Amino acid sequence: MNKKAIILFSGGLDSTTCLAIAQSEGFDCYALSFSYGQKHSSELQAAKKIASHSDIKIHKIIVLDLGSFGGSALTDDNIEVPECSTGGIPVTYVPARNTVFFSVALAWAEVLEADVIFAGVNAVDYSGYPDCRPEYIKAFQRMADLATKAGIEGHGVKIKTPLIHLTKVEIIQKGHQLGVDYSQTVSCYQADENGAACGVCDSCQIRQKAFEKAKVNDPTRYQLN
Amino acid sequence: MNKKAIILFSGGLDSTTCLAIAQSEGFDCYALSFSYGQKHSSELQAAKKIASHSDIKIHKIIVLDLGSFGGSALTDDNIEVPECSTGGIPVTYVPARNTVFFSVALAWAEVLEADVIFAGVNAVDYSGYPDCRPEYIKAFQRMADLATKAGIEGHGVKIKTPLIHLTKVEIIQKGHQLGVDYSQTVSCYQADENGAACGVCDSCQIRQKAFEKAKVNDPTRYQLN
Repeated sequence: MNKKAIILFSGGLDSTTCLAIAQSEGFDCYALSFSYGQKHSSELQAAKKIASHSDIKIHKIIVLDLGSFGGSALTDDNIEVPECSTGGIPVTYVPARNTVFFSVALAWAEVLEADVIFAGVNAVDYSGYPDCRPEYIKAFQRMADLATKAGIEGHGVKIKTPLIHLTKVEIIQKGHQLGVDYSQTVSCYQADENGAACGVCDSCQIRQKAFEKAKVNDPTRYQLN
Repeated sequence: MNKKAIILFSGGLDSTTCLAIAQSEGFDCYALSFSYGQKHSSELQAAKKIASHSDIKIHKIIVLDLGSFGGSALTDDNIEVPECSTGGIPVTYVPARNTVFFSVALAWAEVLEADVIFAGVNAVDYSGYPDCRPEYIKAFQRMADLATKAGIEGHGVKIKTPLIHLTKVEIIQKGHQLGVDYSQTVSCYQADENGAACGVCDSCQIRQKAFEKAKVNDPTRYQLN
C-alpha cells in the first residue's frame, strides 16, 4: 500500500508543482482546497479542473467563511486588491490563513492516517506573509505532534514544504521537469471567471518574469482588454 | 476602551464558565461557536440561547464540516456514541478539533485585534483528549506568535485556559461564585432537541457527580423516559 499525502491545493502554480512532487515521490494524493470567501474564486475553478485531470484519490473542498471576519483585500469587499506592493505585510495577507488550512489538513490527515501534508509555501518570494517562514512551519509541526492521537503515539503526520527555499524560477523549472501543465494554474488575484490573468498585479508580474528567467514557455492566459 | 477577548463557546458547562471569567476580568467578549457536523446540535442551540442572554459584543457561528472527514463518534453516523468510557483516547475524540477551533479564533483575533482567546479546555477531567493538555496549549501559543502579523510585531493574542488545572467540581464552584446559570448549558453528547440530557453517558455522569460534590444545586434538565 502506498503512503498517503494530503496536498494543500489552491490551483495555483506553487501548489500544482507541489502536487507533482508528491506524485513523483510515489504518494497516494488527497487534495484539499478551501472555499474561504476569496474574491478570486476562479482559483477554485482551476483547482477543480486540474484535480479532475490529475491522479488524485479524493479532492475535497471545504467551505469555511474566513471572509466573514474581514481584514484582507482577498476577502473583504471594502479593501481593494492593490496592483503593486507597498512594502511590509501586504493587505492581501489573510489573517491566520495557513494556520487554518494546515489545521483542517491535520484533521483529515488523522482520519486518513496520512503520512505527510504537502504545502507549497515559499519563503523566498513569500510577499511578506508571516505564515510562510520556516520557523513558523517548524512551530506548527511541534504543535501538531502534541495535538493528535497519532502524534502522541509517535507516528504523527509530517509537514513537507518542498518549495520553501526555492525561487519562483526554480519552482517553474522543477515543475517543468515533472511535466506540470501550467496553463490551467491561476496566480492572479483578479483573474476572470475563465481563469485569465490581469497581467498587471504583483502576482502576475512575479509569475511572468519567472517564466522568462526560467526559460520555460509561459502558457498563462491573459485578459484581452 | 476595554480589552477584547474571544471565547471559544460551545454552550457547555466549561465554556460558559470561561465566558463568565472573561467578563469578570473586564474584557469585551466575542463568542465563537462552530457548527462542525456534531450530532449533538442541541449544544449549538444552547450556545445561541446563552449568548443572547449574556453581555456579548458579537456571537459568531462558523460552519465548518469536520464531519465530512468522519473518524469520530461525535460526527460520524457509523460510529455510535458509547455510554461509558473504555479507556485510552475515546471514540468521541474529534480529530484535531481544538487545533481547528483555535486556528479560526486566531484568524478572528487578528482582525479584531483581540488581546486574549479564552478556551475552557481542561486537563484534569479531560477524558483522554490529546489537545487539552498544557504542553499542547503552550505549543499552539508558540506557533501563533510566529503565524500572525500581530505576533511577529510582539503584541500577538494570548491563549488563556483558566480551567485547565481545575476539577469539574472546582469549575462549578467558580462559576457558581460568578453567578453562572447552568440550567441552559448542555454537557450531554446525546441531549434531545430541547437540551435535556440523557443522564447515563460519561459526560452526564461526570457532571452529575461534580454538582453533588460541589454542593451546588444541579439545574440540569433530564430526558423523562
